[in-house]
Amino acid sequence: MSNPTAPADAAQLKDIVAHAKEYGFVFQSSEIYDGLAAVYDYGPNGVELKNNLKRLWWEAMTQLHDNVVGLDAAIFMDPRTWEASGHVAGFNDPLIDNLDSKKRYRADVLLEEKAAEYEKAGDPARGAALTAEMGRRLTANDLAGVRQLIIDEQITCPVSGTGNWTEVRQFNLMFSTQGSAVDSDAPPVYLRPETAQGIFVNFLNVQKSARQKVPFGIAQIGKAFRNEIVARQFIFRMREFEQMEMQFFVRPGTEEHWYTTWKAARRRFHEALGLPAAKLRFHDHDKLAHYAKAAVDIEYEFPFGFKEMEGIHSRGDFDLTQHQNLSRKKQQYFDADIDPATGKAYGNYVPFVVETSVGADRLFLATLCEAFAEETITEGEGEAQQTKTRTFLKLHPAVAPIKAAIFPLVRKDGMPEKAQQIFDDLRFDFRVTVEEKDAIGKRYTRQDLIGTPFCIVVDGQTLADDTVTVRHRDTREQTRMPISALRGYIGEAVSFRRVFEKL
Amino acid sequence: MSNPTAPADAAQLKDIVAHAKEYGFVFQSSEIYDGLAAVYDYGPNGVELKNNLKRLWWEAMTQLHDNVVGLDAAIFMDPRTWEASGHVAGFNDPLIDNLDSKKRYRADVLLEEKAAEYEKAGDPARGAALTAEMGRRLTANDLAGVRQLIIDEQITCPVSGTGNWTEVRQFNLMFSTQGSAVDSDAPPVYLRPETAQGIFVNFLNVQKSARQKVPFGIAQIGKAFRNEIVARQFIFRMREFEQMEMQFFVRPGTEEHWYTTWKAARRRFHEALGLPAAKLRFHDHDKLAHYAKAAVDIEYEFPFGFKEMEGIHSRGDFDLTQHQNLSRKKQQYFDADIDPATGKAYGNYVPFVVETSVGADRLFLATLCEAFAEETITEGEGEAQQTKTRTFLKLHPAVAPIKAAIFPLVRKDGMPEKAQQIFDDLRFDFRVTVEEKDAIGKRYTRQDLIGTPFCIVVDGQTLADDTVTVRHRDTREQTRMPISALRGYIGEAVSFRRVFEKL
Repeated sequence: MSNPTAPADAAQLKDIVAHAKEYGFVFQSSEIYDGLAAVYDYGPNGVELKNNLKRLWWEAMTQLHDNVVGLDAAIFMDPRTWEASGHVAGFNDPLIDNLDSKKRYRADVLLEEKAAEYEKAGDPARGAALTAEMGRRLTANDLAGVRQLIIDEQITCPVSGTGNWTEVRQFNLMFSTQGSAVDSDAPPVYLRPETAQGIFVNFLNVQKSARQKVPFGIAQIGKAFRNEIVARQFIFRMREFEQMEMQFFVRPGTEEHWYTTWKAARRRFHEALGLPAAKLRFHDHDKLAHYAKAAVDIEYEFPFGFKEMEGIHSRGDFDLTQHQNLSRKKQQYFDADIDPATGKAYGNYVPFVVETSVGADRLFLATLCEAFAEETITEGEGEAQQTKTRTFLKLHPAVAPIKAAIFPLVRKDGMPEKAQQIFDDLRFDFRVTVEEKDAIGKRYTRQDLIGTPFCIVVDGQTLADDTVTVRHRDTREQTRMPISALRGYIGEAVSFRRVFEKL
Repeated sequence: MSNPTAPADAAQLKDIVAHAKEYGFVFQSSEIYDGLAAVYDYGPNGVELKNNLKRLWWEAMTQLHDNVVGLDAAIFMDPRTWEASGHVAGFNDPLIDNLDSKKRYRADVLLEEKAAEYEKAGDPARGAALTAEMGRRLTANDLAGVRQLIIDEQITCPVSGTGNWTEVRQFNLMFSTQGSAVDSDAPPVYLRPETAQGIFVNFLNVQKSARQKVPFGIAQIGKAFRNEIVARQFIFRMREFEQMEMQFFVRPGTEEHWYTTWKAARRRFHEALGLPAAKLRFHDHDKLAHYAKAAVDIEYEFPFGFKEMEGIHSRGDFDLTQHQNLSRKKQQYFDADIDPATGKAYGNYVPFVVETSVGADRLFLATLCEAFAEETITEGEGEAQQTKTRTFLKLHPAVAPIKAAIFPLVRKDGMPEKAQQIFDDLRFDFRVTVEEKDAIGKRYTRQDLIGTPFCIVVDGQTLADDTVTVRHRDTREQTRMPISALRGYIGEAVSFRRVFEKL
C-alpha cells in the first residue's frame, strides 16, 4: 500500500531544509552566532553523503579511465592567474544602492524581476523586450544606461519604497586576502572563484609526471569562493562551495567529438546514481562566454524548478594560451601521432579543452530532494487499522550515510552483545551503527529518516541459529539470512562496481 | 642482496622534494608564475596518496567508533567565533623589520637562533638563559623588552648586516577577507586558522541530530590558513594546510582517562600505517596554552629532526564556555547517567574536551619520507655482473596511489588486449593502470618510483592458461597466479580491515 511521492514545488524545499537540519545533514554556518549568510556546514549524515558523492565522482573519473588523473591544487594561487583567466577584469556583478535604505541590489536582478512581473501580468512581449535591452546595455558595459532603465521602469527599493538610486557599478565577485605577512606591498591573494585554473597552470607538470598523452583529463575536487549578492535557495548558491571539475585536453579539431562524448557520459553518471531521466535535461547556452566554443548545462528539476547542476564546456585553447602569454612559459604539447592528411606527426600545439564541472553541493541537494519521499501506509487490522504518513530518504545504498543499523530486539538475553559482535565485524567494511533504545518500529523510523537502506534485527532465533532479519528501507520487507552472509549482501548493494557498470 | 636505507639527514629532504615533483606528488603552487611562497599543489600521485591517508583516518575515527561522527564545517565562520576562541586577541607572532633591508623577521626566531649559536659555540647555559629571558618578556607582552634583547645581543639583519631595527609589534596570523558584498560596513571574515572551532560551535547540533551521548567525538577534515612569517621545510609549514581533527566530549573528571586512551590510540594508528616505533616519540608540552590542561605531541623523525606531526590536547571546557558566554546560548549537555557518589543523575554540565589534531600534510610528508628507500642491487652474472642503486617508495599498499600496474610483455600476440581486459575488470575495485611502452625492467622502475606494490605481467603463458606473474615492489619477487585470483589478492593487501585490525 505504498505511494511514494517526490516533492515538486518550492513549498517542499522548506520541508527538505528542516529535515536536513533536524537529521544532521546541513546546518546553517555559525548558527549559535545567528548564522553567516549563504554559508552552510555539513552535519554527521551530510558529510557522509557528500563524501560518498565526491568519492563516486572521483572514482568514475580517475579510476575508470586510465587517461584521467587527479590533482589537488591550493585555494591560494599567484594573483596573475586571475589576470590571465579574465576574472580580475570581468568577473563582476552590476550593483546599485538605494540611497534611502542603504540596501544594495544587483541591477540585472531588479530588471529581471520587473520583466517577470510583465510576464505574470500577461505581457510577456514587454518582459522579453526589457530583458533584451538590459542584455544589450550590459554587454556594451553601458552602466549609466542600465541605471536609466531602472529609472524608466520606475523600479523602487522594496525596503524604502523610493527610486533614489546610486550609479550602477561593477563589483568583482572574487574574495581577496593578504598577499604576504612579510611584504606589506605584496598584491592581495584571491580565494579562487573556480578550481579550473589550478588545473590549467599545472597542465605540463601533470602531463609530464603522469606520462599522459593527449587526449587525457585532469580531475579535481575543491572549494571555491564567490562574493554573491543574491545567495539563496539553501545550498544551491553559496559564497563558499565545492566544485568537481575535469578538464579534458584534446587535439584541436577533435573537440566536438569529446564534447559530445562527455556530455552523454556525465548525464549517465547522474542517472546511475538515481536521478530519473525525466528530471534531468540539457540546456544549451544561448550566449557563450568569451572563452567558450560550445556550452551546455545538465539541469535537474529542483523543487524551485529546472536549474543548472553541471556544465560541460568546450573551452578551446583560451586558458592555456592566456597563461602562456602572461607567464611566458610555453604551454604546448608535442603530439607524435601521425596525421594521415600529411603523413607527418601532428607536432606541437596548445591543446583544446573540454570541461565538465559539477557543483558538489548542487549534486548533494539534488540527491537529497530526489530521495525525500513520503508514502501513506496502513497498519494494523480491523478496528485497530490506521493509516499514517511514512517519510524516508530513498538514497542509493552506495551514497547512504549509514549502510546498516543493527538492533537487538530487546536489551537482554545476550541480544545486545550479539548486536555488538556484528557491529565489531561489519565496521571494517561499512559505516554501521547499533541502536538499542525504543520500540523496534521507532528505530526503523529513525533510520528511514536518514536513509539507512538496511536494518538488521537480532532476535531470539539469532541466539539459536546465528540468523538475523534484514529489513529493507524502501519496501519495508524483511529477509532472514545468516550473519555470515551480511557482509556479502550489503557489499553487493553498496558496491561501486554495481553503480559504475551501468555507465 | 638488498640494503634498504631511509634518509636520516636534512640533505636528503632535497632528494625527496625533487622526487615529489618529478613523480607527480607535490608541485610548487602556481609554478609557471614562479611559485607562491609556502603554498603547494598535490599532483596526480600526491592527491591519491593524500586521499588514502585522509580516508584511513576518517574511517579509523568515524567507522570504527560508533560514538565518533563526522562534520564538514565551512572555512568561513562568524567573526565572533575567533573572539571567543582567543584568536583575535592572541594569535600573534612578534615581528620586527630591519630599516635598511626592509626585511621582516620573527623577533622570537632571531633570538632563538642566537641562543642556538651559543649552544653550538659550547655555551649552552648562555643560550638557555637567553631563551628563558625572551620567554619571560614575551609572556609579559613586553615588546620593547624583546627589542632591547635583540639590540643587547647585537643581532643584525642577515641581508643588510645592520642592527637598525623597528619596534617589535604583534602581527595576527589570521587571513581576513570581505565580510559581505551587500554591506561594506560588515566586519571582515577570517579564513579559519584551525578547524576545531567549527566543531565547537556545532556541538549541540551534532549531539542532538546524531543522538550521541557523552562521551562521544566529532571528527573533521578541512583546510586552515595561517599567515606564517617563517614558512619552510617544504610542506611541513604552509600558509594553506589541512587538518584532521577529532574533538572528544567527556564528563568532567574523566578527561585524564580519555587523554591517555586517545594518546595511545593515535600512536598505534601511525604505527599501523608503517611509521616505525623508533621514529615516533611523545613530546609533552613544557608550557601549556591558556586553554590546555595537558598537551602532548606525537613527533616523527623527519629528515630535519623530530618534529610535531599530531597534537593531543586536554582542552577542558574552555572553548564551549567561551562560546556560551559570547553567544549567550547554553552549551550544556544533560547526563542522565547515575553518579554512584550521589545516587542521582550527573545532570547538566559543559563537557570537557580531549582533542586529537593531526596535520594531513605532515602525515603525508612523514609517509613519503619513510617510504623513500634506496638499495644496492646486483644484476647479471660473471663478467656482466653489475651493481646499481634502486630507488623505490615502500608505501603501505593501502596508501599507495596506484595499486597495480598491468604490463603486456610485448605489444603483440594479443597481450595488450589481454592487459586491457584485466584493467577493465580491476578498475572497479582499485586504481590500476596499463603500461605498454619500454622494456619490462624500465616499467618496473617507473612503478617502483611511485610506490606501486604490484606489477602484473601478461606473457605468452597468460594467453594459454589465463595466469599472470605478479611482481612485488619491495622484494622484487614474482608469483604466478590465475587472473581470477588477482582481485582477492590485491584486495587483501590493500584492505582497510587489515590495517585497522592491528589497532
